[in-house]
Formats: sequence, structure tokens, C-alpha cells
Amino acid sequence: MKVLITGAAGMVGRKLTAALLANGALSGKPIEAIELVDVIAPETPQEQDIAVTARAVDIADPAAASGLIANRPDVIFHLAAIVSGEAELDFEKGYAINLDGTRFLYEAIRLAGRQEAYCPRFVFTSSIAVFGAPFPEKIGDEFFSTPRTSYGTQKAIGELLLSDYSRRGFLDGIGIRLPTICIRPGKPNKAASGFFSSILREPLIGLEAVLPVDENVRHWHASPRAAAGFLLHAAQMDTASLGVRRNLNMPGLSATAGEQIEALRRVAGDKAVSLIRREPDAMTIEMVAGWAGDFDASRARALGFAAESSFDEIIRIHIEDELGGELPE
Amino acid sequence: MKVLITGAAGMVGRKLTAALLANGALSGKPIEAIELVDVIAPETPQEQDIAVTARAVDIADPAAASGLIANRPDVIFHLAAIVSGEAELDFEKGYAINLDGTRFLYEAIRLAGRQEAYCPRFVFTSSIAVFGAPFPEKIGDEFFSTPRTSYGTQKAIGELLLSDYSRRGFLDGIGIRLPTICIRPGKPNKAASGFFSSILREPLIGLEAVLPVDENVRHWHASPRAAAGFLLHAAQMDTASLGVRRNLNMPGLSATAGEQIEALRRVAGDKAVSLIRREPDAMTIEMVAGWAGDFDASRARALGFAAESSFDEIIRIHIEDELGGELPE
Repeated sequence: MKVLITGAAGMVGRKLTAALLANGALSGKPIEAIELVDVIAPETPQEQDIAVTARAVDIADPAAASGLIANRPDVIFHLAAIVSGEAELDFEKGYAINLDGTRFLYEAIRLAGRQEAYCPRFVFTSSIAVFGAPFPEKIGDEFFSTPRTSYGTQKAIGELLLSDYSRRGFLDGIGIRLPTICIRPGKPNKAASGFFSSILREPLIGLEAVLPVDENVRHWHASPRAAAGFLLHAAQMDTASLGVRRNLNMPGLSATAGEQIEALRRVAGDKAVSLIRREPDAMTIEMVAGWAGDFDASRARALGFAAESSFDEIIRIHIEDELGGELPE
Repeated sequence: MKVLITGAAGMVGRKLTAALLANGALSGKPIEAIELVDVIAPETPQEQDIAVTARAVDIADPAAASGLIANRPDVIFHLAAIVSGEAELDFEKGYAINLDGTRFLYEAIRLAGRQEAYCPRFVFTSSIAVFGAPFPEKIGDEFFSTPRTSYGTQKAIGELLLSDYSRRGFLDGIGIRLPTICIRPGKPNKAASGFFSSILREPLIGLEAVLPVDENVRHWHASPRAAAGFLLHAAQMDTASLGVRRNLNMPGLSATAGEQIEALRRVAGDKAVSLIRREPDAMTIEMVAGWAGDFDASRARALGFAAESSFDEIIRIHIEDELGGELPE
């Protein structure tokens, strides 16, 4: 199996690469080669059996897409994207990367398929940003897509094209709408959703963290390990069971900030919880109010996608995967 | 008011042009100029007070869009499209006209707005083809868009872009999803939906017509007069009441072929009905089975859009508008 990952330098891309190398196979067939691309060349993990190459590619360049599939990868993970905040600030850049870059890749695959038999599995990472408020209490699998950001619009268009190109037989696509990834490893970042991770991640290592919203704020989460699992399952599952509806809400865990904090208390004690400072921030409060807090992902669950069922579990996964299995003294 | 109509040579475009000329004003302001464009130059109705011009323009040409808005029209009716069947047969042409052509126009407006204040009302004709089976009994205003044709995909993308460009303040958009237009004037055409019109239109003038499906087949209809009315209302309504959800199912009449025929009997008698021959056609039966038959258009109705409430009324409108007000002897 030959694998291409775009956006491979990002957090999810690195988790996915590690999971592929650990598995060594997809659908029972050994992985021979993994190509990692991103706007700057991703680091290449050292691995004896699998040829891992890395390249810097600007996917907004119309000429780049045919090069990306020159080796005819069997599985393509298309993770590359301009994130929500940046796509909102830079309208043209967001459309160039998130819409045109994605469409160039679909088109390159379609045109390659006119010369020789070629229909790769295409795993597209979409987002719950395809939905826009007002929401029902729980967003179902048939709720309409009315994004309130350019990023969400671009992801929704990527989904529509994925479905049409799949229906036409040009590629074998599946779009997965990831929950917010929690606990995100690394340092605090400026994403408005960053506090959902930092109120757990920092206290676990004895550092202070800020909760800028009310404890009742509800959100939709899955661990980095679950995200890599979604991608691997999407690459290997029988897509015939999807029918023509190829875009799925991934499962996740609906929890309030208060429930996150109580899980932290159970796993790491009162001392960790005492490191969380309440500092309400008007802008964050307003942004978060427009986000969805709960989903019915029964379709994805029935198709074999699985996520965590408690925040205790999400915290323990972080301790195992990022902190060497135990809390610092 | 300056008005631009793309796809002006089509049936809906001609009905809209006539309605604009008859009204003479939009939102209480006199119409000064109407520009009609299509792939071949539309006919220009003779009218003293309003300057009507016509041009042949290929909207798939990236350079064409800025010319279309050179006069900074206040209202743009974007009707131009490759129809469903052709977009399915010619993948590249469908995307070039229905997606790229629409996006070029949005982009030209956005770029014009960077040089001077410009934010036209943009009325986009979308389609119930944005929906794909399996359907609920009645498709609601929040049902998701999973098109099963490239045409439906292109229209759904046009809707998403319209919403985002409107949210950003680049244009003041409204997308209207038209029901099947019935009774379509003119000769029988090869559209799979053509029989819904021809089983009424032909018998009304003493000609035979073919019903290729079962009488229980249910579909969603509005008259050409209602379609022109939707467009005029969309051009004049207060879009603030739309919020960020700028695409609407238009109202229509849900009726079976049998109910259409009974209305024909009431309006034109048994002799007209006897001209309908039953000739089941397997391909038409299969296509029609994938179409939606009923919608909940309560959002559009609440916003002031109105359609017919009986097929008797739809038939009488045809007699008034196309047959000079009375049936031939």
C-alpha cells in the first residue's frame, strides 16, 4: 500500500503517521511507502521497513496536484487546511487552500483515472464547522449544513465534491467531521477552543490554566488517539456501506467544562483542579456560544467508528500517550 | 434600478423579463435598464421607458464576469445553468458553467466592492436537486443536502458560496429552490420531468400526451407565473429577515399525476383527459422514483413567498397566460 498524507506536519497528521507506522499495514496489506507533504516539509520518522518521504508542497498551486499523485497512492489522507481563524481573516487564502487545493487534488485523480485504472481511497477531514447555529439540542446525521465561517463553507464544499466524485467513480471518498481534539498535546495556542485542552493539560503537569467561559458550556470532544483511529478506520472500512452519503459526523463525547474539571479531580486530585483560574473573557464566551455541544453520531458508530465514553478516559489517554504513563510528582 | 439577468433566454428568464417590464419598478424605484445575457443573445422586448440590452456571454470564461457587472447592476438574477441531464453527461461543462461561472460572478462582485461601495442584491436560482433520496415523507427546511447529481452538487455549492459571500457583506444574496415548473409552455422536450407538463398542456389544445409513470407518482410543482413571482419577491424583500440562512425551499403544490389529471378533467372535461395515453417507461419510472414529492416550505411562506394551492389554478394560469384566456374549440 502506498499512502499520501497532506497536512502531515500538523498534530493530527503526526498522530496518523505514527499510527500507520505502528500498524505497518492497511486492510491487511503491508504499507510500502508513506509520502508526507505540508507547506513546510514534515519531519520523517526513522523506520526500517517503510519508505517515508517528506516534501514541501503548496497545494494552492494548480500544478502541484498531479505531482502529489504521481506515484498513484492507494490511500490519500487529505488533512491540509487553513484553520478556521486564519480562513476568516484571509478570505482569499482560505479559499485557495481549503477549496481550490482540495478540488485540484480531486481533479488530478479524475484526470489520472482517464489514462489508467485509478480510484484511490480518499479520506477527507471535514469539521463540525459545516454546521451553524441555531442548533437543535443534539445535531443529527441529517441536519443541514449552514456554516457561519468561511472555513466551514470550504469544508462543506469539499464534502459535496467528495460525494459527487465518488458517485461518479473517480475516487472512493469518505469525509469525516472531527470533534474538537482534546487533550491537544503541546503548548497553549491561540485557538478560541484551546482552553478545553489547556484546563486539563496544564494542571496535569502542575501549571496554571485559565477557564474563560462558564462551567456549563457544553462541547464535543475526542482524543488525538481517537482521531487517528477514525482516520485508520475510514481508510480501511467497506465504503459500499456508506451508500451515496459519504460524509459522517464522527462520534465524540459531549461534556461541559465543569464535567471536564470533575474528571480532572478524579484522575489528578483537588490540587490539579485548584490550578484552574476563572477569568471570563467576553469574546471567547460569545464565540463558544455559537458552537454545537452535542451530536447524534449513530450512523458513524454503526459503521464502526468509536470514541471515548468518559473524560476520565480522555485524560488517561493523554497521560499514557504524552506524559509517559504517569503524572509528574 | 439597473438589473442584470443571466440565462435570460430560458423560459424562466423570459417570464421574469416580462414581469419586470410590466412592473416597471423594483422596491418602489423605477427600473432604468435591464441587461439580458445568455450563451446566445436573448431577444430584447420592445419597451419605451426601460433600456433593454442583450448580449451573448460565456459565463465559464473567467474574464467575462467583470464585464457583466461593469454597469454595477443593483439587482442580479443569476439563472444561467447547464441543466441536470447535460451536467450529468458532460461533467466538465457542468462544473465550468454551474460552479465556476457562478463563482466568477461572486468574485467579480467582491473585487468590485473593494474599489467602491457595491453590494448588489443577488438572486440565485437553486433547485430541489440539492436534495437526494432517501427522503422523509415531507422535506423540511432543515433537511440536509446530499445531491445525487452533479447538477445538484453544483447548485448546493452555489448556495454555500452565496451564504458566505453574503455573511461577509460582499453581496446581498438569496437562493431560491424552485419546484418543477408546471405547466411549462412550448413544445414537449426531452427532460425526464417533461410529462408533468405535457399531460396537461397537450390535451388542453386537443393533442395526445403520454403518461410514462404510475398515477400515484407525487411531485412538487409551481406555475411559471409563480416562479416569476418568487424572483420578484426575492429581489425586493428585506433580507435581514433571512438571517444567515439565505437559501430557501420555495412553496409549491404537492400533487400526484392522478390529481393533475382530475384537475384537467374539472377544467377541460373528459375529452381532454381521454387524450392521455398510459405508456409506462422503465427509465422514467426509475428516475422519478428518486425525486422528492413533498416539501415543508413554511419558512419561505412566512417570508412572503406564495405559490398555487390547487392544480385547477395552475391549469387556469396556463390558459390565461399561454392560450389567450380560453380553450380552443
